[in-house]
Amino acid sequence: MKSDILNVDNTPSLIKSVKTEYYQIPLAEVLSDAKHGDHTHFEVIVCKVLCQDGFEGVGYTYTGGKGGRAIYSLIEDELKPSLIGKDASRISQLWEEMTYHLHYVGRGGLLSFAISAVDIALWDIRCKRLGEPLWKVAGGHADRTRCYAGGIDLNFTQDKLLSNIQGYLDSGFKGVKIKVGKPDYREDVARVAAVRNLIGDDTIFMVDANYSLPVETAIRFAKAIEQYDIKWFEEPTLPDDYDGFARIAESTSIPLAMGENLHTVYEFNLAVQKSRLGFLQPDASNIGGITGWMKVANLAYINNLPICTHGMHELHVSLMSSQPHAGYMEVHSFPIDQYTIEKFTVDQNGNAVAPNVAGTGVEFDPALVGQYLIKQS
Amino acid sequence: MKSDILNVDNTPSLIKSVKTEYYQIPLAEVLSDAKHGDHTHFEVIVCKVLCQDGFEGVGYTYTGGKGGRAIYSLIEDELKPSLIGKDASRISQLWEEMTYHLHYVGRGGLLSFAISAVDIALWDIRCKRLGEPLWKVAGGHADRTRCYAGGIDLNFTQDKLLSNIQGYLDSGFKGVKIKVGKPDYREDVARVAAVRNLIGDDTIFMVDANYSLPVETAIRFAKAIEQYDIKWFEEPTLPDDYDGFARIAESTSIPLAMGENLHTVYEFNLAVQKSRLGFLQPDASNIGGITGWMKVANLAYINNLPICTHGMHELHVSLMSSQPHAGYMEVHSFPIDQYTIEKFTVDQNGNAVAPNVAGTGVEFDPALVGQYLIKQS
Repeated sequence: MKSDILNVDNTPSLIKSVKTEYYQIPLAEVLSDAKHGDHTHFEVIVCKVLCQDGFEGVGYTYTGGKGGRAIYSLIEDELKPSLIGKDASRISQLWEEMTYHLHYVGRGGLLSFAISAVDIALWDIRCKRLGEPLWKVAGGHADRTRCYAGGIDLNFTQDKLLSNIQGYLDSGFKGVKIKVGKPDYREDVARVAAVRNLIGDDTIFMVDANYSLPVETAIRFAKAIEQYDIKWFEEPTLPDDYDGFARIAESTSIPLAMGENLHTVYEFNLAVQKSRLGFLQPDASNIGGITGWMKVANLAYINNLPICTHGMHELHVSLMSSQPHAGYMEVHSFPIDQYTIEKFTVDQNGNAVAPNVAGTGVEFDPALVGQYLIKQS
Repeated sequence: MKSDILNVDNTPSLIKSVKTEYYQIPLAEVLSDAKHGDHTHFEVIVCKVLCQDGFEGVGYTYTGGKGGRAIYSLIEDELKPSLIGKDASRISQLWEEMTYHLHYVGRGGLLSFAISAVDIALWDIRCKRLGEPLWKVAGGHADRTRCYAGGIDLNFTQDKLLSNIQGYLDSGFKGVKIKVGKPDYREDVARVAAVRNLIGDDTIFMVDANYSLPVETAIRFAKAIEQYDIKWFEEPTLPDDYDGFARIAESTSIPLAMGENLHTVYEFNLAVQKSRLGFLQPDASNIGGITGWMKVANLAYINNLPICTHGMHELHVSLMSSQPHAGYMEVHSFPIDQYTIEKFTVDQNGNAVAPNVAGTGVEFDPALVGQYLIKQS
């Protein structure tokens, strides 16, 4: 019996085909932040990897509305030909191959989005073959994780901002984040004060400037809002200005957070070394999928930092749940979860619950997304 | 008379249309390096910007064979719609807009290639409107620049390597570079010794590992070849490992060089701060065009470093000539210059001569490239 258990089936799970789908999904209303302007829709690029043994994995990435067709090209024209016939279970090997196969036009950027979609599909296959949910396969720490509602609301009037926040509270969220970066930072301060007044002392509260502020303004703003018990100040200035982040961090007791614009694990390493961050926010859709996200999660762990996320909460809920040092997961304003079969849920304590199905638990419902399909292979 | 001279014509030069062409051009033979494997062809993506006042600019970027269709998509689907109707003479403004319009999927990577093609077209228009060659518009230091022949020859036997180098000498080059990164570094040492023996003491000689070596091996190799008077050791290890570069640089008197894989000006800044480089090698095709290249040239100047280049010599000859601190320009093994109207020339002293025509001097000859056109808008 024991020897049976120890016997390993090393039969490769050869990749038979890769299919790619490109969607443009409209937002219910225009959402704005300080640096990306108006969002009218978001893009989802789905990658389906089918193995000869019948297992199929679903991966995906998304954008704020731009670049999706180039990602589609990278998967279809460049990655797919190198994947057919390979063993889907050798995820680490395939990840390195994808990274270096296209390194000259890559090193992060758009390539990381394309690799992410493929990598998530490979992890989906891994979980399905194991018959286990992602939160267990990725670590198994817990089956749920703390979360907050991340608004994209810089264009909202203060009244609308507050009613939007009230909606989050009514939905059971125990944490909220708002955008800042108004032309006059004092308006941001007033909005922060109004939100804290609305949500009371016990709700977690973050602000996000989408890297719009000069270092000097960020320092001035941070000092002005310290009294409102801010959990973190996200992307105060240009993500490339690692030293600028450090100057801001040294001037305030509010921890800094960043990650959505760091698209290689090396960029995260530099940010940890230089920027005095309080929270890391990798996004599995643009850091090289689950493989990339886990590398950053480990980087956070060994640096005594909580791991957090950006976007894609229907997938990140499983990754965050799996980790011992999970901070707060963003429930993003791009509602990708509304187009999936398994529904995203928040429990009565305000924690996001990881899907308990074999795989990542994220599969798109053709009845919901079909109308937004622009092209497919 | 004086007031006439001082009168400025600020009539905007509005962009009427943008056309994109995508070529796959075969190489005469397979060329290999340590990290990118075999090159069988290269890609050229041409961007033509036509203004309402009749001026047309030609820009382009290239790759080692992968990613070109995604670059085509970025220009056609994302950049072009935001360029139509804009003033082509506001290059700095357009460069910032392109950078931040697509920043979320950008920050270097593939986006930098796409911006480069557009930016070069805008500079071509600027030069044509001024009626001046690029080497004057970009600075005007000189009309020619030192150069060397950059081989992609790791797959060549030692005999073939030497005959290839002899060909460079016969063509009048006063400098040569070879690839290194063989599985056993001692074979690289033997090839370096053989090449130095062939070229004599007065020919400039560089080596390029295409970031293939562990830091430890790079240090060992550098020590072994110091006796051969090596001008620089290019990309010994992973371009993300800025500290690893510094460890290598501290162990050898051979200066280090890097740049082809740094696709934002911020990455160059980090490399200068951390990596103890001897030479910077930005490539206008992937650092954001001439605007990006000039920013790095200025960074080099204020850090007392020679500015060099990678690839695209038919364009870089003008940029290098324009600068007071030009080092050595690579004449790359991708012969893009063979497909242009204006011919690339090296004078009797081994210096590359900048074209003396209004514009960048790089225009593709349909009779030569037409057969390699894959798609166009």
